[in-house]
Amino acid sequence: MNNYITLSDIEDLQELIEEALQLKKKNTSAEAGKGKTLGMLFFNPSLRTRLSTEKAAKLLGMEVMVMNADKDGWALEFEDGAVMDSNKAEHIKEAAAVLSQYCDIIAVRAFPDLKDKEKDEAEIVLKSFQKYASVPVINLESATGHPLQALTDAITISELKTDKKPKVVLTWAPHPKALPQSVPNSLAEVMQKLDVDFVITNPEGYDLNPEITKNVQVMHDQEEALKDADFVYVKNWSSYEQYGKVLSTDISWTLTGDKLQNTGNAKVMHCLPVRRNMVIADEVLDSENSVVIHQAGNRTFAAQAVLKRLLEKK
Amino acid sequence: MNNYITLSDIEDLQELIEEALQLKKKNTSAEAGKGKTLGMLFFNPSLRTRLSTEKAAKLLGMEVMVMNADKDGWALEFEDGAVMDSNKAEHIKEAAAVLSQYCDIIAVRAFPDLKDKEKDEAEIVLKSFQKYASVPVINLESATGHPLQALTDAITISELKTDKKPKVVLTWAPHPKALPQSVPNSLAEVMQKLDVDFVITNPEGYDLNPEITKNVQVMHDQEEALKDADFVYVKNWSSYEQYGKVLSTDISWTLTGDKLQNTGNAKVMHCLPVRRNMVIADEVLDSENSVVIHQAGNRTFAAQAVLKRLLEKK
Amino acid sequence: MNNYITLSDIEDLQELIEEALQLKKKNTSAEAGKGKTLGMLFFNPSLRTRLSTEKAAKLLGMEVMVMNADKDGWALEFEDGAVMDSNKAEHIKEAAAVLSQYCDIIAVRAFPDLKDKEKDEAEIVLKSFQKYASVPVINLESATGHPLQALTDAITISELKTDKKPKVVLTWAPHPKALPQSVPNSLAEVMQKLDVDFVITNPEGYDLNPEITKNVQVMHDQEEALKDADFVYVKNWSSYEQYGKVLSTDISWTLTGDKLQNTGNAKVMHCLPVRRNMVIADEVLDSENSVVIHQAGNRTFAAQAVLKRLLEKK
Repeated sequence: MNNYITLSDIEDLQELIEEALQLKKKNTSAEAGKGKTLGMLFFNPSLRTRLSTEKAAKLLGMEVMVMNADKDGWALEFEDGAVMDSNKAEHIKEAAAVLSQYCDIIAVRAFPDLKDKEKDEAEIVLKSFQKYASVPVINLESATGHPLQALTDAITISELKTDKKPKVVLTWAPHPKALPQSVPNSLAEVMQKLDVDFVITNPEGYDLNPEITKNVQVMHDQEEALKDADFVYVKNWSSYEQYGKVLSTDISWTLTGDKLQNTGNAKVMHCLPVRRNMVIADEVLDSENSVVIHQAGNRTFAAQAVLKRLLEKK
Repeated sequence: MNNYITLSDIEDLQELIEEALQLKKKNTSAEAGKGKTLGMLFFNPSLRTRLSTEKAAKLLGMEVMVMNADKDGWALEFEDGAVMDSNKAEHIKEAAAVLSQYCDIIAVRAFPDLKDKEKDEAEIVLKSFQKYASVPVINLESATGHPLQALTDAITISELKTDKKPKVVLTWAPHPKALPQSVPNSLAEVMQKLDVDFVITNPEGYDLNPEITKNVQVMHDQEEALKDADFVYVKNWSSYEQYGKVLSTDISWTLTGDKLQNTGNAKVMHCLPVRRNMVIADEVLDSENSVVIHQAGNRTFAAQAVLKRLLEKK
Repeated sequence: MNNYITLSDIEDLQELIEEALQLKKKNTSAEAGKGKTLGMLFFNPSLRTRLSTEKAAKLLGMEVMVMNADKDGWALEFEDGAVMDSNKAEHIKEAAAVLSQYCDIIAVRAFPDLKDKEKDEAEIVLKSFQKYASVPVINLESATGHPLQALTDAITISELKTDKKPKVVLTWAPHPKALPQSVPNSLAEVMQKLDVDFVITNPEGYDLNPEITKNVQVMHDQEEALKDADFVYVKNWSSYEQYGKVLSTDISWTLTGDKLQNTGNAKVMHCLPVRRNMVIADEVLDSENSVVIHQAGNRTFAAQAVLKRLLEKK
């Protein structure tokens, strides 16, 4: 692996899942990262991603340096050929090249603005780091994808499924703010690589980018979609068609205990943070069906498997 | 020890003081924390507590992850059953459970608002972490107590006292801002567990919570109280009776060199930060009598003793 | 070495440069810093300095604790004898003494205000740490100097020069904001200690402090100065004579490809961050002549050599 920018950087998903589950069992790989440094750069807040990736790196014996971009350092210019007479003190060309002098791997989080679809899809922050860094780059959630979360989700489903080929349903849920499509995008991508029945359900106007969902069945009737589900993945996202808009906060889409009855005693997943009683009701999150904490715990092992690959350059 | 939330989590204070003083002598316990992670979460600023606890953890071989809550992560919801449609993105139930996936011990600092006594005394932040975390929780100063400081103070007095049973005087001093009662509360608690003569002196209206001070003698005449003191612990706090109010900034309560004459050549203590010439005069802080820096140095060993106990679950 | 506050703390520059280049070759000195802690305190933003110094310390086996002063901790009072009734909660006397309890070396960054020459030249922040700390202090860039950068620059020139005694030209370049003289000051100092032909060129009104530049030739004709240069060090600074003022943003001083023709195929240096097409043109930064990234990479080894000296107290 040379970078971990999108899921397509994984050559053999099944093998990587197995490796993560092995790392979860025995933490005996502290040699791989000895004397190596991970630099993490955050353009947006982070709890799970920050701590789990830091923990993963340290479990591998790496040193970790964390920076809040803009706040701790300098505002960055991304435009090629810019005459830098504004408030932006450093060009990404230098920033990425210099970080590559101090770090063996660079991890970057950069959310979308959700105002200009074309601009967000250009992924200028992440792509610029990839272009100008001389070391591997990890995507800690970008404008359009969150591949570390998706790998975690694949690990969690592989770990918790029974022998039966599971039915996995991704359901939209209401939320007061406009959220990115990055998590559902990456989930849709990774599910198409696993041996599962995958269905997406969301209100009209909330269909994800069809170039990502491809042939995945999209249903606008949540009740119908949830029937016999083995895993229900709940997540809000803003509209892709009317880009970045909140078209609905209809709480009839909230995942409640009643709706769980309709499933095959499904395990409930969410990437967190989750707004209780908006996205998922208390009675679901506090029930045995919820695996959201277990899932968050797996973030460490997904990050560890990816870091190990990048360190081993294989 | 299962948590370190209040002083009553210490079973045998004397034993723990001895252990801290042993750790101070030889730093040879790096095995206890190997492969373990301390997560520190700050809802308020910190210098000594942050650095001494981080240092203590690293001396024990632990990895440390530091977060400024709200700034680095997400605003937290603490209310049970809340419909989370406000600006708070994550519930403490998830935050504490998830942190428990990444950390072996969680340490939390959360100051009081000093507006609503009942709310502050409920200690909702700390108690919620204790309730929803599955790993031990350490109090890095909460609304009503600062048990790591109090343990430090007990260690310092044990270390510096002569054979004689010492007289320890806690004296209020003026300060321009309303400060919590957490430090004097915990000091009053720990002094009641040590073999010392303990006296508190403060202006009328500044008596601490009688449920904490119990039978400790409280004098409103500072001169009388300081007589023959072996240790003078200086500290400002806001009124408990007229909760959170600054009733006086009377500088006749400032600890000056003149007043020291009246003591038994007392050693002067303060938890720091200290406002010079408001709380304690320059001539005292710059004299041989002041042990405030020595005391601050002991913060490391108090934290180390507590962390070691929690790691050893004994 | 007892501190690293200015370049004059280096006894034998050549020896230290050699040591840094040795450290660059083989990172086998992890024993020197084992069990030791570096505390880094930032009163201003930092990217390179922060990461390279942190990396250097970790390569030496040290633990590192990073603090953003004021933000993470308490506002500091520097005035002697102050009655501390303002918003400043802690005096530098305590802060420096306490940090010395937790850290084996303290590193401090504190920029000038560029308003009051006398005040800036007093270097109150750095000097106070030096005065009240009981451990070595490192200057991470102060009001008037940046000796870690200057050591890096000396290392880089020593490493990249040919057998010939090189001509090194420091040229002023335009910039929209008022910048400190710290980098050119320290460069001028260190170049006077190396076996190089050193020339400074800047517009009238931009002459540096003559107590620092001493007998160095200062030319106001950039074209003349650049002739046959082996190294061109580009840097903006605000006026020293009309203290802190931006007297010119004349882009005829920008280092362009045309001007490079006039040199002896010079290597181009800059401390970074650099504003492209204001300070240096794209065609220069993106050319083979630019060594700015290589130079930034050497920051690690300069810091490592200094830290090693301080740890070894030699």
